[in-house]
Amino acid sequence: MSAQNIYDDPEFLAGYVTLDRQVHGLDGAGEWPTMRSMLPEMAGRRVVDLGCGFGWFSRWAHEHEAASVLGVDVSKKMLERARSGTASATVEYQCADLDLLDLEPGSADVVFSSLTLHYVHDLNRLMAMIAEALTPGGSVVFSVEHPIYSAPTTQNFETSEDGDRVWPLDNYLVEGERVTNWFVDGIVKEHRTVATYVNTLIESGLVLDRIDEFGPTAEAVEARPELADDRHRPWFLLLGATKPN
Amino acid sequence: MSAQNIYDDPEFLAGYVTLDRQVHGLDGAGEWPTMRSMLPEMAGRRVVDLGCGFGWFSRWAHEHEAASVLGVDVSKKMLERARSGTASATVEYQCADLDLLDLEPGSADVVFSSLTLHYVHDLNRLMAMIAEALTPGGSVVFSVEHPIYSAPTTQNFETSEDGDRVWPLDNYLVEGERVTNWFVDGIVKEHRTVATYVNTLIESGLVLDRIDEFGPTAEAVEARPELADDRHRPWFLLLGATKPN
Repeated sequence: MSAQNIYDDPEFLAGYVTLDRQVHGLDGAGEWPTMRSMLPEMAGRRVVDLGCGFGWFSRWAHEHEAASVLGVDVSKKMLERARSGTASATVEYQCADLDLLDLEPGSADVVFSSLTLHYVHDLNRLMAMIAEALTPGGSVVFSVEHPIYSAPTTQNFETSEDGDRVWPLDNYLVEGERVTNWFVDGIVKEHRTVATYVNTLIESGLVLDRIDEFGPTAEAVEARPELADDRHRPWFLLLGATKPN
Repeated sequence: MSAQNIYDDPEFLAGYVTLDRQVHGLDGAGEWPTMRSMLPEMAGRRVVDLGCGFGWFSRWAHEHEAASVLGVDVSKKMLERARSGTASATVEYQCADLDLLDLEPGSADVVFSSLTLHYVHDLNRLMAMIAEALTPGGSVVFSVEHPIYSAPTTQNFETSEDGDRVWPLDNYLVEGERVTNWFVDGIVKEHRTVATYVNTLIESGLVLDRIDEFGPTAEAVEARPELADDRHRPWFLLLGATKPN
């Protein structure tokens, strides 16, 4: 089964390009400083960016002296813009479905993926492929929509019987597809538990280095009170792991 | 600061002894088969049971030929009953607060803890102490109330605006004390995120083997429809880790 490609839908794309992280790139993504702290040095490394989109991270890796960068995405339109932003013999973009992609064993030192793997149907296959593609000592760092965020039938805060603002969590333990509306109707994502993401990494032979459940800090809410509800549940789950020597 | 000792409160204890897991021991604890699958063989191992209560696990480890068992609990009343159930030179029970306990470095092959560490105030200290107490290749396996369970102001299911049964999650990212009522009022637990439990283990120098977010399976709900709501959020978080050689 192929992953859904919403990114070539003009209506979706028209909304998507207005996101802070698409206007401002990595600096518009709140979780970027945390992800960056989980990444090794880029210099001299062969870097793969799964779900590279417009190529923000691929370009950053290139600018930080990666030996080579391979950006992979299912969306031709996004790859067009990624390619137009980088002209270098050491940066390559490939159009591929992550449920089908096969990288060469031992071909990557760093695998990065931002907010993409919740679209992948077969996480076991992909993670085993990534573990095989990594060189010993190599790293994988990825983010997904947090499972607490992706689980519920209704993904909006509401007011509880006691008058508290709450995230109406249901079906957290029920893994499988979730259909949501985001710029367009019918976006299909795979809901998996935190345990599934963690255990899939470990079962692929990788050693977990750190996870992060990213949301606004107490200080961020002081500066931007409109984020107060977002302390109730995380936005993203970040994971970093290493292939043992 | 000492951990709260509710277990010597007669009113609490009167309720607590009626729990399935206290009437039937390990077989009355739904998560036990999963925890058991995360544990190494007991035979010949020096085993420590942190928050041993009535000694159910300590006795099980002894019956499975552990070389020695040390059960630790803050409750004198529970330790009395634990002691009365085991008469062996290789089983010892000690009354201690886990926020103060110091085990000898290299004195344990297996550290086990069931539903206790959410009472501990200083998890960093305890986990560093456990890592030091373990021999290389040794294991720690523990369970806590799941952070999704422990976070909310109101720990009861309710019906959402859309008519769905939901767990009214709030303050997941706000770590710290939670005061709940369970047989008696004013039970104090420490709410920590999943990331904090995972990262504290890793930062102590241990290698994470597996986590489990334990709740009823779809099959369990078919057999016992009254558990349907419990698919909406996990009961317990289980973690298993190894000290590298």
